[in-house]
Amino acid sequence: MLIVGELINASRKKIREEIREKNYDAIAEVAKDQHENGACYIDVNAGIFVGKEADYMKWLIQTVQENVDAPCCIDTPDPQVIEEALKVHKGTPMINSISLEKGRYENMIPVLRGTDFKVIALCMSDEGMPHTKDERLKIADNLVNSLVKNDIKIENIFVDPLVQPIGSGDHLGREFLDSIEAIHERYEGINTICGMSNISFGIPKRGVANRTFMVMAITKGLNSAIMNPLDQKMMASVLTAEMLLGKDQFCENYMNAYREGKLDF
Amino acid sequence: MLIVGELINASRKKIREEIREKNYDAIAEVAKDQHENGACYIDVNAGIFVGKEADYMKWLIQTVQENVDAPCCIDTPDPQVIEEALKVHKGTPMINSISLEKGRYENMIPVLRGTDFKVIALCMSDEGMPHTKDERLKIADNLVNSLVKNDIKIENIFVDPLVQPIGSGDHLGREFLDSIEAIHERYEGINTICGMSNISFGIPKRGVANRTFMVMAITKGLNSAIMNPLDQKMMASVLTAEMLLGKDQFCENYMNAYREGKLDF
Repeated sequence: MLIVGELINASRKKIREEIREKNYDAIAEVAKDQHENGACYIDVNAGIFVGKEADYMKWLIQTVQENVDAPCCIDTPDPQVIEEALKVHKGTPMINSISLEKGRYENMIPVLRGTDFKVIALCMSDEGMPHTKDERLKIADNLVNSLVKNDIKIENIFVDPLVQPIGSGDHLGREFLDSIEAIHERYEGINTICGMSNISFGIPKRGVANRTFMVMAITKGLNSAIMNPLDQKMMASVLTAEMLLGKDQFCENYMNAYREGKLDF
Repeated sequence: MLIVGELINASRKKIREEIREKNYDAIAEVAKDQHENGACYIDVNAGIFVGKEADYMKWLIQTVQENVDAPCCIDTPDPQVIEEALKVHKGTPMINSISLEKGRYENMIPVLRGTDFKVIALCMSDEGMPHTKDERLKIADNLVNSLVKNDIKIENIFVDPLVQPIGSGDHLGREFLDSIEAIHERYEGINTICGMSNISFGIPKRGVANRTFMVMAITKGLNSAIMNPLDQKMMASVLTAEMLLGKDQFCENYMNAYREGKLDF
């Protein structure tokens, strides 16, 4: 499971203030905490600072990479912000994200073409959010074929089928899960990724629902997630599911987590 | 999810003593607790009392059914014990179980033929326990076809593919899960059932592994389980998974469990 740490995002109130004040130690700490707890990529998002996004983005990337030996997941729909970010980023970043929305798609392709970047491909089009498996697959088909034509390797593509709240329709969890399975069946070597928390929007005990849905998605083939690696119960669910699927040789990660007291819930 | 309450089993030390002493109140209590917490069938097993099994079995069934309005899951490989049990059992029981082991199979078919009993069909043969999906399917094929030929309806068959410990082989969880999916794909209307706890034999934090594996199996189509309905975390996992699969209209069961404080873990 490839984990992208989601915490350094200006849409979160506390982080927004830390970014605004360029509080180096605070951001460094959140980066280190996430990396130590399993994040392979550190998501950085300064999207709320209109006009100053590129400046803050560069500062975030430098702050993160001075403190952890990990690439960033550059989280912006603005290709100019990405261009600026790439001037300071070390190693190969993940780009979050391209979609099939016309403006976003056309602006993003030139930035991605022929690179080794990891690319998150959101199943979103000008027709809006998809609801069914088939709607998601139609968008995924378009995006994946287009990215491959533009010399992005299939193994660098991370399709995000977009989780929708179960409270908006009993079938929305099932459709999402089936789309994860279908994407892996259709494109050998591809990755799927998502943030889970939207599934529980509007219902209580969101943590229980989120981590149960994570286990279900992993069962269907999900191999990457944008998540909070400091959420111990969620992390325990992820590594237990991976162990049970045979992706943890001799249960080594599971046993280590046990010894560190990280399975206590 | 059809839940068979597993607690009244003489292989459990405390229950064995209650049965030996025919402690009516104790057995009645365990039956009521299980039924109130979601068990549709109450498993009754007195297998450890050689020579007295039929006597104890009849007493167990009467004790259970005097206290809860539910059928029993008659848990014995001995057709004569079943014949005795049927003399006192009210309603349509579940029989636990037939398998492809030669003696067991031949003895059990005459008891089951043409009945409306629910039948647990263990994926076990004289060649021993199956390890792979294909081995399980081969046995399931034989059993299902034979039961149908003997006028058992497909919707009364509960195939148990037999969970094996993940500690014995990294692949054993995956093979089991894939067999659940394959059985539902192959036989429309069939049921699958299992006890989960064997998955975690020999590893720590068994509860975490058991309930994670339960969620994974439900994701693959498992629609029945022999389990402890008093295990609140397990029950929360079951009903959360069902809700996320769209099997809980308007999240009603989930919301009720929330209001009763049963999602607190």
